[in-house]
Parts: sequence; C-alpha cells; structure tokens
Amino acid sequence: MAEDASRVTGRVILVGGGPGADDLITVRGLDRLLAADVVITDRLAPVGLLARIGPEVEIIDASRLPGHPTLTYDQITDLMIDRALAGLTVVRLKGGDPFVFAHGAQEVESCTAAGIPVEVVPGVTSATAAAVLAGVPLTSSEGAAGFTVVSGHLHPDDLACRLDWTALARSGTNLVILMGMRQLPAIVGRLISDGVPADAPAACIASASLSEQRVVRAALREIPATVEAAGLSNPATVVIETLQSSAHDAAPMPGARIRAELPGLAPVPGGW
Amino acid sequence: MAEDASRVTGRVILVGGGPGADDLITVRGLDRLLAADVVITDRLAPVGLLARIGPEVEIIDASRLPGHPTLTYDQITDLMIDRALAGLTVVRLKGGDPFVFAHGAQEVESCTAAGIPVEVVPGVTSATAAAVLAGVPLTSSEGAAGFTVVSGHLHPDDLACRLDWTALARSGTNLVILMGMRQLPAIVGRLISDGVPADAPAACIASASLSEQRVVRAALREIPATVEAAGLSNPATVVIETLQSSAHDAAPMPGARIRAELPGLAPVPGGW
Repeated sequence: MAEDASRVTGRVILVGGGPGADDLITVRGLDRLLAADVVITDRLAPVGLLARIGPEVEIIDASRLPGHPTLTYDQITDLMIDRALAGLTVVRLKGGDPFVFAHGAQEVESCTAAGIPVEVVPGVTSATAAAVLAGVPLTSSEGAAGFTVVSGHLHPDDLACRLDWTALARSGTNLVILMGMRQLPAIVGRLISDGVPADAPAACIASASLSEQRVVRAALREIPATVEAAGLSNPATVVIETLQSSAHDAAPMPGARIRAELPGLAPVPGGW
Repeated sequence: MAEDASRVTGRVILVGGGPGADDLITVRGLDRLLAADVVITDRLAPVGLLARIGPEVEIIDASRLPGHPTLTYDQITDLMIDRALAGLTVVRLKGGDPFVFAHGAQEVESCTAAGIPVEVVPGVTSATAAAVLAGVPLTSSEGAAGFTVVSGHLHPDDLACRLDWTALARSGTNLVILMGMRQLPAIVGRLISDGVPADAPAACIASASLSEQRVVRAALREIPATVEAAGLSNPATVVIETLQSSAHDAAPMPGARIRAELPGLAPVPGGW
C-alpha cells in the first residue's frame, strides 16, 4: 500500500444520500460531501444539497433517466477514477444506500482495481425510510418477524427475474417493492395466487421524504387500481404485509396498523 | 386536533440513531436530539452523542440488557407520555431505524392514543449499514435482486418463529440476520438442508460502525464455527448470499465478492 499511497493522493467516497430530503443524509455523508473536490450526483440523490457546495467544486450530473442515459456506468466509473488519479477527493452522491440497488459494489471494485482508496458511507435506504415516513412498521412483535426488499422492475414471470415470488409470498416477512409501479398488477396477482391474502394491508409511498411525497393505502387486491387512480409513479415504494392471517386466528389482523392513518404523525416542514 | 393542540404543547420524536457511530445519525435526527428537553436512550443508540447534550436536558437510560431490564416497555412509554403532557419535547433515541425491530410503531400508537403528536425520523438500519461497512453488497446486477432482513433470536423450529425458513432459503434474496449469534448453528443447518449451497459466501459483522467493529467471512457451512472462534457476540449481523449458483452456471459464483477483502476500503477514524 505504501507505493500506492505515494502515487495516488485522491480518493473516492460513495455516499448514501438517503431517500431525498436534504436532512436525511447522515452527518458523515454531509461532511464528506462538503469536503469534496468533485461531486458526481444523479436524480435520486438529495440534489437540494448541491446548493451548499462551493463554486470551485466540479459537479457532474450522472442522472440516468429512463431511455435517456446521459452517462453509461462505465463512463461514470472512468470519471471517478480519472479525477481521483488527479489527486482529487471525489464524492459519488447516491440516493438511498450505496449497496442497495445502487451499483456501489461495482464502483468499489473498479476503483480498487485502479489502486484508488474507496470509502463507503451508509445511507438511509428508501426501502425503510418510505415505510417510516408513511407510518408503516416493517416488523412487529406479533406480526412479521422480518421484511424483504426487492426490485419490482421485472415481470414476475420474466426469466431474467431471479426472485422466487412463491417463496417470497410464503416467507412470513413483509414485502417492500422498489420501482415496481409498472409491474404492480402482475406482482400483486402473483402474490395473491401464491397465497398472500387478497385483503392483506398494502401501502404505496411515492417520492418519500420530498415535498411531493404521496401515500395511498388499500387492501392488496386493490392497491394497483388505487395507485393508478392516484397517478403515483416511480420512484415509489410498495409495502405489503404478507403474513398469513390463518396463522393468527386468535390475534387481530396483522398489519391492521397500515390502514390506520396514525393521526398523531405530525407534518414537518419539508414534506415529512 | 385544535383542542388537542391547546392542551398538549409537548411532543414525542422517535429518532433512528443509525448503527452506533456518532456521525451515522441523520442530520435531521441530530437536529431533533439537540433540541430535546428529554432524551430517552438505550444501549444500542449512538450514546456518544449524549455528550453533546446540555446539562439542563433530562437523560433517561432505558437500556434493556438481556435478563436485566431496567424499564419495561410500558414504563418507557409512560415516561414519554408523561413528559410530553408536561409540555416537553421528548426524543426517544434508538439504534438503527425506529420501525425495524425497534417497537417504534407501538410507541407511535401509544402516544397517538394519548393525544400527543409524534414524529418519526428514519435512521440507517444496522441491517444495511453492517453490510456496507463490511464491504458486502446486498444486491447486485447479476446476483440477488433483493435482500431479506430477519430476526435470528428464535430457533428456526420454534413454534413462535413466524418465519418460513424454507421459503427464505429459496427466495432468491440475500439474507441479513440480526441478533442471531446464539441460534446461528441451527439457522445455518436449516438453510443448508433447505437448499442454500453450503459454500455460499457469508459474513458476520459485530458492533458495526463502532471502534470495536469486527468482521469475519467464511463459507456458509463454516460461518458458525468461524464466528465462535472469533468470539463474536450480539449485536451482530450475519449476511448470507443464498442465491443458487445453479441458476448462474456460466457466471462467476455469485457473491464471490464477499470473500474478496475489498482492499481499497480505507479505514476511517472512528472505526469505520
């Protein structure tokens, strides 16, 4: 490492920016961001924070809009490595957490292969933040003893989908589906046919933590139509309480809580 | 709500403190903590932050050590409500995220029933932070398309365990097991008998993000002995890449990454 240290003075820091609100980044993440020479950001990052960055800092927008990629992943990685080899401190600002559906591991590998030190700062993943901000518990002492986070961008029957939806339906965990707006009818149909009660409580949270955050709740069978009627679109998170009520005959319907509006949740400036 | 607002001037804020390091709390969480009149904390919260709180703030330690509970959950809730009804701003500082294995939903319900406004500030759950800090990706573009977070405190055959471990083994998601040190041999045996490859990559991260953080890696079949030999204990997180390699004959072993030490990950002051 000694010879590397003398050659490379720059470094790369992958920062999880959280779900989107400026103040849901971690303290460490904000510190790293404000000390950067170069910031590579994208559309799911907390872009409001960029206003706090000095004019001398290079900001690169690596947003990859569906159908309109501005930079390929390889180009983004090349940029990180190029700037770090020039001795600069590069922050790659991401939405959520760098290791949850965010290509963080590949970027760590690429930088490491190029001899560049990499730090990763965890972030609040939208998977958990959306549930919290919508008042939906992901686990409960009498209900689900866990939760599963999956990408919903593929049809459940797509051969490229590496998820076993039948197993997911039976796992006894609540389900959190990211980016599943387009496939939601197919996913819900599959879950119901695989045994999740059609009246299982479900919620959809769009633009979690941002001023435009919207939440709808419905029984599982009705959530696709409810989401469509509300006009919700990605980035959105769907939370489903899959636990079979038959296992809890004597207990209240697990997840009845989702239907309650949790009226005590106080609105907070900034759209909480 | 108008009559409530005139009666109750206090409020309760559940703050997710993140995995333990002082600077892995969110900016919003720290703001709320520093504005509190009363802070109720416990042993998994980032207790280093308490040193930043003024002497006029009441700090209540609600640590529930195994076998030595200091306060019951009901007593903790009663304290929150009592102080809020007295007009104070109460921060309940928790480790991780308030809605992931943290009784946050129950506390929201209790406060709401008492007419007290509640805010919940998401935090970085240890489930994702531990993976990031150990360099273990939770999802990958060619491997698992999701991850499952479960509590490992019950034996898989315990009737009170509401998880279907067979389904978990087949879900195609990586597994994150919290607080599973005692049951790890039983859980691993069950996963292997349910079809997870015995050589699936696994890692265990104890005290993630703290100066005493320790990480061990091994094949699934060897992780219980490896963890025991290293003397790791809770709070610890186990990450297992369960994806069947048979689905990827032509591809590299999924999760080979876990075995790599990711040498570029730079140590950071504070134990990162």
